[in-house]
Amino acid sequence: MRRVASKALRTAFRTFTSVSAVEAPRVSRSHRFLGATLIASGGVLLYTSYSGCVSAAQKAGNMDVTKFMAQPITNLEALEATPDDMKTKMELLIMRIQKEFCQALENEDEDNSKFIVDRWSRHDPKEGGGITCVLQDSKTFEKAGVNITVMTAPLSKQLQASMRARGKELPEDKKFKFFAAGISSVIHPRNPHVPTIHFNYRYFEMQDEDGNNKHWWFGGGTDLTPYYLVEDDVKHFHSVLKAACDTHDRQYYPKYKKWCDDYFFVTFRGERRGVGGIFFDDLEGDNANDVFAFVKDCADSVIPSYIPIVKKHKNDAVTEAERRWQLLRRGRYVEFNLVYDRGTKFGFATPNARIESILMSLPLHARWEYMHKPEPGSPEYKLTEVLKNPKDWL
Amino acid sequence: MRRVASKALRTAFRTFTSVSAVEAPRVSRSHRFLGATLIASGGVLLYTSYSGCVSAAQKAGNMDVTKFMAQPITNLEALEATPDDMKTKMELLIMRIQKEFCQALENEDEDNSKFIVDRWSRHDPKEGGGITCVLQDSKTFEKAGVNITVMTAPLSKQLQASMRARGKELPEDKKFKFFAAGISSVIHPRNPHVPTIHFNYRYFEMQDEDGNNKHWWFGGGTDLTPYYLVEDDVKHFHSVLKAACDTHDRQYYPKYKKWCDDYFFVTFRGERRGVGGIFFDDLEGDNANDVFAFVKDCADSVIPSYIPIVKKHKNDAVTEAERRWQLLRRGRYVEFNLVYDRGTKFGFATPNARIESILMSLPLHARWEYMHKPEPGSPEYKLTEVLKNPKDWL
Repeated sequence: MRRVASKALRTAFRTFTSVSAVEAPRVSRSHRFLGATLIASGGVLLYTSYSGCVSAAQKAGNMDVTKFMAQPITNLEALEATPDDMKTKMELLIMRIQKEFCQALENEDEDNSKFIVDRWSRHDPKEGGGITCVLQDSKTFEKAGVNITVMTAPLSKQLQASMRARGKELPEDKKFKFFAAGISSVIHPRNPHVPTIHFNYRYFEMQDEDGNNKHWWFGGGTDLTPYYLVEDDVKHFHSVLKAACDTHDRQYYPKYKKWCDDYFFVTFRGERRGVGGIFFDDLEGDNANDVFAFVKDCADSVIPSYIPIVKKHKNDAVTEAERRWQLLRRGRYVEFNLVYDRGTKFGFATPNARIESILMSLPLHARWEYMHKPEPGSPEYKLTEVLKNPKDWL
Repeated sequence: MRRVASKALRTAFRTFTSVSAVEAPRVSRSHRFLGATLIASGGVLLYTSYSGCVSAAQKAGNMDVTKFMAQPITNLEALEATPDDMKTKMELLIMRIQKEFCQALENEDEDNSKFIVDRWSRHDPKEGGGITCVLQDSKTFEKAGVNITVMTAPLSKQLQASMRARGKELPEDKKFKFFAAGISSVIHPRNPHVPTIHFNYRYFEMQDEDGNNKHWWFGGGTDLTPYYLVEDDVKHFHSVLKAACDTHDRQYYPKYKKWCDDYFFVTFRGERRGVGGIFFDDLEGDNANDVFAFVKDCADSVIPSYIPIVKKHKNDAVTEAERRWQLLRRGRYVEFNLVYDRGTKFGFATPNARIESILMSLPLHARWEYMHKPEPGSPEYKLTEVLKNPKDWL
């Protein structure tokens, strides 16, 4: 079986790398195809392909890679040999979620736009890599990024200090390495009446060089950033997240809803970046499988929480003033991401991080006006009031 | 004499606050007039006026306030009583530089656009305030901000730690307060062939509650961020800065030119934000007057270093591709300012800072494209090569 999988892998690699030579579907006009092994900043680009280009030849062995955007980061044999390892389970979960979400977004585009799929490795391939899917400048989405990362690397001193500050017991005299597998996505639609969504689910393992001082935890969340407040949409969004939480523990939703409101707070603006959702970090427990099941349900709730809102508003009429407001709010989004976001900071602090995958979260366009204040009573003002005073939506 | 000055001050205040009721010159269409005493985030807006609206009635006492954009932050009597105090000298220097630079920029606009002048105080007026001048969306300038701040405030624990990290000896058991007077400016022109300029000159004093453990220092710099590399312009810019430095010490220019190249480095991009200039911090010495004279000459070199470049290129023909490149580079500017800039971080760490005055440095528009790489050999590529490998221009 291993040999078959391995052969499938080689075939898959050939299929992926040769796609540049064939007729590709319409992709963002600004993406330059970079060849198969060009060194991109902070990583090695293994190949670029397009959504839907995985050939049937890759469906081999026990693992059907056609249900992913690209072949997994960990080699197929290793994944097949360790089905019960949480590292494997998490990698396969985020691979599946990436594919399903990208497909759901493509279905909302009427111009046959396809995600670009960049599969890349760290400079040292033993440290892993990622798959970055980006859809840029399409009819429905100005910028949509869905990234997965699977990596094993030494924990830098800076990250070690930040872990310690968060309460992890890490002896000062030990060197640590970590494993991280996560999916991270930010979708900036074109229409100002469709909110931006962000979600991120991740699993960490950490241990010292001798294999002692082991730690593991999950983190993640899903949050919505509307430009205009449509209460029904926000209620729908929160109710789907609550349902996912309630299956596991009725305390989860209120707790992680509040955590989300607190986390996405821009201190210097005195406002949250959006209408929240759920957020949690350092989630441990007696049974990793229980926590995994919760994280899986959260990740599976992204599509039903968001896609109906996209469908509802993607063709709404838009005024120039609404577009301008959207761009101003995108400026605020940039502020949060560059100044506060934990994932972005983690990326900045990781040596040789692939910066393009981290900053795919930034919008295509943003705007900053000095002293802009929405007219009291206006729809724009109504949004800012909710950003200042978060509500219980359900 | 003091009474006269005080009367002039009251007249000035009336003149400024009443300007909203009269015919104002054309200003940015997006600025909403906010009234005279509205509380703005992180400060109290005392009044908004427009460049050139200082009436002759304010020319009274020993101090001619018509040569400033607004009345100084420190009251005129206190300034007149302490002409030899470095705090006074610095405040009057930055007031003059602000006016001269704003006027020089307005002269480059052919549509009679005028700076908006916001004079504001900290929530506790005893802590000082600032004067923020912004020209937005004019023919020549997309966003031009020239801000002065004069403040006295307790040093937060966070700032205390960062001062200590920079080598200041501050006993742990003492509480400190600081005085800061500085001018900070970022000009984002509309035409991609006109570079962005930034300069900042500041004076700090620090002492503990008992008036002991005194420290003072100057910091500052001027740097240029072109979108297209015109070597003659860069040489002109650097030669004017070098001339200012050489008057004081022939070691200054090479030293501060290198400091500038090192400081404006975006680690995660592996490139500088522009073609540099000069940068220095923690400048002390045996004689504060000598350091002040150097800082004054640097500040006075801003106009001759920059305005000729604006004149030369402000009406250059522009293609859509050039505009797009400009916006992408503005995205990089945002990255530096939000992630690295010492002044911005200082602002974020100062309780109740006036965020609009800090973030006026951000461009009106910015753009982020996934994996954008300029074509090798193109003018855009030529710029990025210099950002990666800084040159000696002179």
